[in-house]
Amino acid sequence: MANGILESLDGKLERCSINTATLGHRESLRITVDRIARAGFGSIAPWRSEVESCDVHALSRQIKDAGLSVSGYCRSTYIPALSLTEFKANVEGNKKALHDAGVLEARCFVMVVGGIPVGSQDLAGARTQVRDAVAELLNVAKEVGVPLALEPLHPVYAANRSVLNTLGQALQWCDDIDPDRSGYLGVAIDAYHCWWDPDLAQGIASAGNAKRILAYHVCDWLHDTQDFLLDRGMMGDGVIDLPELRRLVEAAGYVGSVEVEIFSKENWWKRDAEEVLSICAKRLQTVC
Amino acid sequence: MANGILESLDGKLERCSINTATLGHRESLRITVDRIARAGFGSIAPWRSEVESCDVHALSRQIKDAGLSVSGYCRSTYIPALSLTEFKANVEGNKKALHDAGVLEARCFVMVVGGIPVGSQDLAGARTQVRDAVAELLNVAKEVGVPLALEPLHPVYAANRSVLNTLGQALQWCDDIDPDRSGYLGVAIDAYHCWWDPDLAQGIASAGNAKRILAYHVCDWLHDTQDFLLDRGMMGDGVIDLPELRRLVEAAGYVGSVEVEIFSKENWWKRDAEEVLSICAKRLQTVC
Repeated sequence: MANGILESLDGKLERCSINTATLGHRESLRITVDRIARAGFGSIAPWRSEVESCDVHALSRQIKDAGLSVSGYCRSTYIPALSLTEFKANVEGNKKALHDAGVLEARCFVMVVGGIPVGSQDLAGARTQVRDAVAELLNVAKEVGVPLALEPLHPVYAANRSVLNTLGQALQWCDDIDPDRSGYLGVAIDAYHCWWDPDLAQGIASAGNAKRILAYHVCDWLHDTQDFLLDRGMMGDGVIDLPELRRLVEAAGYVGSVEVEIFSKENWWKRDAEEVLSICAKRLQTVC
Repeated sequence: MANGILESLDGKLERCSINTATLGHRESLRITVDRIARAGFGSIAPWRSEVESCDVHALSRQIKDAGLSVSGYCRSTYIPALSLTEFKANVEGNKKALHDAGVLEARCFVMVVGGIPVGSQDLAGARTQVRDAVAELLNVAKEVGVPLALEPLHPVYAANRSVLNTLGQALQWCDDIDPDRSGYLGVAIDAYHCWWDPDLAQGIASAGNAKRILAYHVCDWLHDTQDFLLDRGMMGDGVIDLPELRRLVEAAGYVGSVEVEIFSKENWWKRDAEEVLSICAKRLQTVC
């Protein structure tokens, strides 16, 4: 990538990862791990709901034995709350999950930070709560050896899922909270969340300069999306210029996984898991 | 507003405007004009579909005779296209509408610029098309005496309704296209589209310094929105801190209308028009 020309992912599935949400969480994680490994991918990104119902040490061994690494662990407990008690409980929930991320040797702990508490109109206050929590969690991240990846979510989720909404905002928080660039605080760049941002190219370059890019997620934004939570498109089926986006991310120095994360209740989650993995593999190698 | 303290809108409905979409376009515009005037509002913002089916000169007289001004004329033909022929037709459609805006003596022509053409993945190209069109339309705006108000739309609409998505982006386009600040190019700030933006306060201040704020629209973003096009909330029912937003807009020097624009298929559009106007009036005077 030194010259800014994008190298194809053809024959490089070991650089690619499958976020288990892509398969709709219809099978046990033990089966999913084997499927993803057999299909030739190099990494997996599991979710807490499925990990926390397993013996995490046994799971970690299974993942390693299958030849996979963990590109990210999904995801944080939402942070903002109306009461201090609830806020503290949310922070504790994240600390517990971070210890599991350590056992899994995850490349990062993906932080979807939470929205505005129901009944509140205090966006600024919710953002302050998140920053305070991230500062506290950074210490735990260093202890367990897993960096925190702040994932800016599309502004459509600002009310109910994430008050962190742009890459620029995420980088500002990183610089404020971790000015010394410890290596334990960075960002997850998800094509679905960021593609529209007029400042995206500049943000990716800044993130690279600061060595903050911890994850890169792909899917596609369908032109006429039916459901803004559960109708993500397969790469190549929507409006995002994915080769250009990966070019920017890799020109900024990112050498980690390209992780597929597709929420698709009415389409991909209804298809056979092997078919979905096969199409993911094909699209990664041809349109990403 | 010199001291940054917000003055209530209580007793000041003449400063308030009703965008006719708020009533769901269920009655003729002639009836709607009378309803809005009788309810005590000072302005109206009509839509092209209803204006273009009238004699626009007669309509303009009716609006003036009712004691109303036109806070904005909604809205531009979408601009980006796959072919030059279609692009030119879109620009011509806007020129024609601008002449009607002149007859209506509208305070501004609201520009919702259009999304990425179906089948394209060229967001940057679509944005270039819009900037080229706006530069051309600016000449017509000067001729007819109605400024163009670029309305950044929420990023949820970036694919299919507007490739202009933040206030900062809109202001950059204004400065690039109209560096001399002719007074004929500015922005419409809509609470629904902008409330989430981490750079909003700074953007509003910059817009004010450049004398670019041509319109201010209110409604609310419901915490659990059911439909991101047609489930806007009434002011006070959602997550937006509307007093703070108006404080910012007025501290930036804006003295124009506060315009209510609510798309609400399953709630407000099913209610009696008089009831909707009465609740708009109440909320404007108490929570905005």
